[in-house]
Amino acid sequence: MDQNPLPRIEHEVPVMFFDTDCGGVIHNLAYLRFVETARTIMAAQMGMRLPEMAEEGLYPVVLRTEIDYLSPGKFGDRIIVRGGVSEVGRVRFWVEFEVVRVDDGTILTKSRQSLALIRMPSAKAERLPREWFE
Amino acid sequence: MDQNPLPRIEHEVPVMFFDTDCGGVIHNLAYLRFVETARTIMAAQMGMRLPEMAEEGLYPVVLRTEIDYLSPGKFGDRIIVRGGVSEVGRVRFWVEFEVVRVDDGTILTKSRQSLALIRMPSAKAERLPREWFE
Amino acid sequence: MDQNPLPRIEHEVPVMFFDTDCGGVIHNLAYLRFVETARTIMAAQMGMRLPEMAEEGLYPVVLRTEIDYLSPGKFGDRIIVRGGVSEVGRVRFWVEFEVVRVDDGTILTKSRQSLALIRMPSAKAERLPREWFE
Amino acid sequence: MDQNPLPRIEHEVPVMFFDTDCGGVIHNLAYLRFVETARTIMAAQMGMRLPEMAEEGLYPVVLRTEIDYLSPGKFGDRIIVRGGVSEVGRVRFWVEFEVVRVDDGTILTKSRQSLALIRMPSAKAERLPREWFE
Repeated sequence: MDQNPLPRIEHEVPVMFFDTDCGGVIHNLAYLRFVETARTIMAAQMGMRLPEMAEEGLYPVVLRTEIDYLSPGKFGDRIIVRGGVSEVGRVRFWVEFEVVRVDDGTILTKSRQSLALIRMPSAKAERLPREWFE
Repeated sequence: MDQNPLPRIEHEVPVMFFDTDCGGVIHNLAYLRFVETARTIMAAQMGMRLPEMAEEGLYPVVLRTEIDYLSPGKFGDRIIVRGGVSEVGRVRFWVEFEVVRVDDGTILTKSRQSLALIRMPSAKAERLPREWFE
Repeated sequence: MDQNPLPRIEHEVPVMFFDTDCGGVIHNLAYLRFVETARTIMAAQMGMRLPEMAEEGLYPVVLRTEIDYLSPGKFGDRIIVRGGVSEVGRVRFWVEFEVVRVDDGTILTKSRQSLALIRMPSAKAERLPREWFE
Repeated sequence: MDQNPLPRIEHEVPVMFFDTDCGGVIHNLAYLRFVETARTIMAAQMGMRLPEMAEEGLYPVVLRTEIDYLSPGKFGDRIIVRGGVSEVGRVRFWVEFEVVRVDDGTILTKSRQSLALIRMPSAKAERLPREWFE
């Protein structure tokens, strides 16, 4: 993956009490918020002008999520999300992210998502601009 | 408050793992989701057609929230939200809700919120329809 | 699936403003909250005493989630979550849920999750009680 | 407030799609997540070792929140949370935060919270360590 020329990011997220549950661990939904945060920051770096796109009704929409929960994270863990675009089609692209505990390198989750660029309110997919992925 | 002719509701909400945190208790933000849920269901009963209003850019907007956390709730608690409209002005109204543990009647939170009817995107407040409060 | 003897549920969830985003649709994470709510209520019906289990450090933990977003839901949609247990192993079981708009029967999401019963803090999986699935 | 010797922070938070709602604005609950994030990071800077405290059952708990929603924020806004400790008692302290849009300096929310240091599971308040506030 090191030679992958597609967009990538490594982003630290703080773990808050509201990210944990009474099992004493990070809740399964919180990891998907972490991934969305990293993905959205990466999107800006790729040249997606999300606020302007939103103004004209164009949104990157998640079509599918797969996530494996490999090891439990805890409040107080230093966490990074790392990954990026793994594949690009005509109207759909895939991203892959790992959520990693910094202190010992443990991979907490691995996830894969496909997204498309959807024009609302018609909910039609648009062709992906090539320049985002170069 | 028993003779209060203003709209009221009593609504049970299930407590989920994602409502709790690693302190073993319901997280402070979850209570405000519980209150919003009860308030939104009450709004429908009052005759607010929120989906249609949203279509034309009209939203009930929270202007202020005050909430006191009196006793900790836990996963597994049966919880009801009870309360209603406490005061109505020309463009602003107030609601008051208690979140109560059913088993022993303990009041977990008491909250008070003021709301207005805001037209977007101008963000102007509209006069409140009288019939909602009758 | 009608003859499936494994536990099933059909549960209505209210769609709140906090379930939607500025794209005008239900946010992708909200569907997973809807599914968790239905799954947790089904677990109680299956005989899982989640609060007592939590007291002794035993939790049903999501190991993997797959979800396909098929059609956008909106604020005001009447939504049901329907599905149940689809497969049971020695320490792992699978659940499948659809989130459906009641008015026109449109399937908004289809998801599949595997879970295990994890004892904390050792994070060891326990053998699943047979009686839950009968 | 400039000469206030009590702990303060100024922290930028990214606005995500999940922070907004179908009204096209940041949802009222999201601001309280922004404030909690800034408050938690400030707590670490004050010398609160929250993860270690959590291990031994000691938590900073919100007793009361007051928040005024002054102006609507949007997806794409650059947002900072600024504020800090405003008052310290024997077992209770107060924090005040503003959420501000960077581009034009507009104050979106003003909030005030009181907190105490609670030992779980007894739910007893402990005397506040003086050194945190110096």
